[in-house]
Amino acid sequence: MSFDAVDVIRTKRDGGALSPEQIDWAVSAYTDGVIAEEQMASLAMAILLNGMTRPEVAHWTDAMIRSGERMDWSSLDRPTTDKHSTGGVGDKITLPLAPTVAACGAAVPQLSGRGLGHTGGTLDKLESIPGWRASLSNAEMLDVLRSAGAVVCAAGSGLAPADRKLYALRDVTGTVESIPLIASSIMSKKIAEGTGALVLDVKAGSGAFMKNVTDARELARTMVDIGTDHGVRTVALLTAMDTPLGFKVGHAVEVSESVEVLAGGGPADIVELTVALAREMLAGAGLTAAKDPADALRDGSAMDAWRRMIIAQGGDPDASLPVAQESHAITAPASGVLSRLDAYAVGVASWRLGAGRARKEDTVSYTAGITVHAKPGDTVREGQPLLTLHADSPDRFARALESLEGSYEVGGPLAPSPLIIDRIA
Amino acid sequence: MSFDAVDVIRTKRDGGALSPEQIDWAVSAYTDGVIAEEQMASLAMAILLNGMTRPEVAHWTDAMIRSGERMDWSSLDRPTTDKHSTGGVGDKITLPLAPTVAACGAAVPQLSGRGLGHTGGTLDKLESIPGWRASLSNAEMLDVLRSAGAVVCAAGSGLAPADRKLYALRDVTGTVESIPLIASSIMSKKIAEGTGALVLDVKAGSGAFMKNVTDARELARTMVDIGTDHGVRTVALLTAMDTPLGFKVGHAVEVSESVEVLAGGGPADIVELTVALAREMLAGAGLTAAKDPADALRDGSAMDAWRRMIIAQGGDPDASLPVAQESHAITAPASGVLSRLDAYAVGVASWRLGAGRARKEDTVSYTAGITVHAKPGDTVREGQPLLTLHADSPDRFARALESLEGSYEVGGPLAPSPLIIDRIA
Repeated sequence: MSFDAVDVIRTKRDGGALSPEQIDWAVSAYTDGVIAEEQMASLAMAILLNGMTRPEVAHWTDAMIRSGERMDWSSLDRPTTDKHSTGGVGDKITLPLAPTVAACGAAVPQLSGRGLGHTGGTLDKLESIPGWRASLSNAEMLDVLRSAGAVVCAAGSGLAPADRKLYALRDVTGTVESIPLIASSIMSKKIAEGTGALVLDVKAGSGAFMKNVTDARELARTMVDIGTDHGVRTVALLTAMDTPLGFKVGHAVEVSESVEVLAGGGPADIVELTVALAREMLAGAGLTAAKDPADALRDGSAMDAWRRMIIAQGGDPDASLPVAQESHAITAPASGVLSRLDAYAVGVASWRLGAGRARKEDTVSYTAGITVHAKPGDTVREGQPLLTLHADSPDRFARALESLEGSYEVGGPLAPSPLIIDRIA
Repeated sequence: MSFDAVDVIRTKRDGGALSPEQIDWAVSAYTDGVIAEEQMASLAMAILLNGMTRPEVAHWTDAMIRSGERMDWSSLDRPTTDKHSTGGVGDKITLPLAPTVAACGAAVPQLSGRGLGHTGGTLDKLESIPGWRASLSNAEMLDVLRSAGAVVCAAGSGLAPADRKLYALRDVTGTVESIPLIASSIMSKKIAEGTGALVLDVKAGSGAFMKNVTDARELARTMVDIGTDHGVRTVALLTAMDTPLGFKVGHAVEVSESVEVLAGGGPADIVELTVALAREMLAGAGLTAAKDPADALRDGSAMDAWRRMIIAQGGDPDASLPVAQESHAITAPASGVLSRLDAYAVGVASWRLGAGRARKEDTVSYTAGITVHAKPGDTVREGQPLLTLHADSPDRFARALESLEGSYEVGGPLAPSPLIIDRIA
């Protein structure tokens, strides 16, 4: 069936719901270049301002999935399960999580992304490991899944091409911040990826895309509904992102911290979130009687899966990770309890140190980043290091320091904040 | 000053008012291609849905005027005044009006447009006169104004180029129906045209762009405010467009009807509106003690001005106008009072007969159109002609007849509707 682009835009502009036929046509015509970029931009703004109903979001997601291939892991002898995080500062959870879940008996086929803005990307972090490759063919993905139980790689161009095109457009037209468009973008890729179960880590707070719990909850609800409507067992955890996760922010430094967790140690918040998400992923895969993730971290089986996964993707798990040439310490201004360390400021500082990219084409420094020496609730002494900044050049420090001004406080009111705020199923 | 396109879009998207600096930058960057079409499309949709304040509309208009030249008629020895109509079916008013006002002592420098959709364009109508040219240089415009007192021609590309580009974009992105964007588009061209006074004929009804009086009043108010803010003496008449104006709809047939009015005859509604608008134009120009327009129509001075104006633009006022090869009559289905004859249906029928264009590049038939034999309130006998359709090919009649189905009624309730609904100053 054929429609007129202006009629479709008008329907949404005037507050109506798009029909399944209108959505099918619009997504497919946009992918094929029949609907021009300026027409989709206008439609995206109308969607952002007027919203979409649950059936519209489900159908929009479906049309984006059908714009490309849908992967199929039915030849594996174990159930598939995956996780998606909406992104945060210090969020390296995929690194310990995927091998931990693999060690407990599920297969994790994770298509992941690169960082843009103040949040880092999982692929950038893993690429700091010498030799590791993010780009795999579908056949290679299957091989890695068979041999290691988990694979983390870049999505191929055949996956949801409509979303790829729309995402780039939204980025330059002020239409990113729409819950239906965010939810359908994430879910189209995750459903096309072919996972049987999915756990969403939806973050709320200064360092997250959603600054408050209300918006994060709505996004989580919308994504859980989409997954459910598409036959993927989906749950979401709402988690706090007011302060960085763990003690490391960057790429190589986050890999090191992840390896500590896989060795049975590491920061308490990383371990707590890894175990909670792993349990949800296994439950989604129907593996409730499997090994407990906390045990997999303790007994070395998660570390074994990690090594298999890194080696299978060309990486050397024993290679030394690159280290930054320059460092600069920020010390505690007073003695007392650290009451605040703002995730967004730390994310921006890390980005300015060289860890982030302003445009998709930019390269990142694998060594740039930040070590956090104290987290909110910790007692500090005046003059002790609070943060150490890492960069390849001392020129980087001035602008990073600017973004950290006013981002930490000693002796202020300490807001008690649980890491896991809620669970949405 | 330089801004980021996404920041400007976000300001409007989130319900804020754009600053004068943001507006200046956005309009100029769009004209220069620094803001991409898809970014302006997104901004236009945000403006359509979230509106603009009076200072924003005034500044937006100003920025569009400053994107090109502003014409200057100060070398003339008479005051300038002009009219703009928002467009209707059978609306040939400019043709008798401009020479009538010239005959009463003002100069009328009218830049006009072509038809798109179901309403006809003044330039298309005048081009049915053999030899007549719509494209004049600024120097030629001044010569015609000096010799004839009135000129009706196409706007050059140097006039409000930002509006030209934005208008084409709005047409394909569902962002036409925004009162601030409509008002600033119209007023930027009229103010850049350099007229000292302006009368707006804002139409309401089925055949108008604004279907109801409330919207038409808001558009009129917005345009009067813009004109006033720019030092142009501006008033608006709200006029009815539920049924065609006069008895002729098309191009050559509307020229003939206009000449009847200039000869002192013609349909009562055309004469009433011409005289009312002419009086407003003269008042705006400060010529209240001048000759009355009704006298100029009666004493032949308006006709003299018409002939001078047509000749000065290369036309032959004595040439025979082209006539359609084919005609088809629609007869009254019953005897009684004609209670309804829908302007929109007649406009669409005329368009389908060949008088209109679907795309800017299309040519129009100068002979296609419709003769109206009875207007609402007239008594008709069963079987007498109600409408005669004119076309160059009999193939045209079927689809025109389709659009006229249900568009007229004999013996129904007759809504009393004054032609001039209100005056907004």
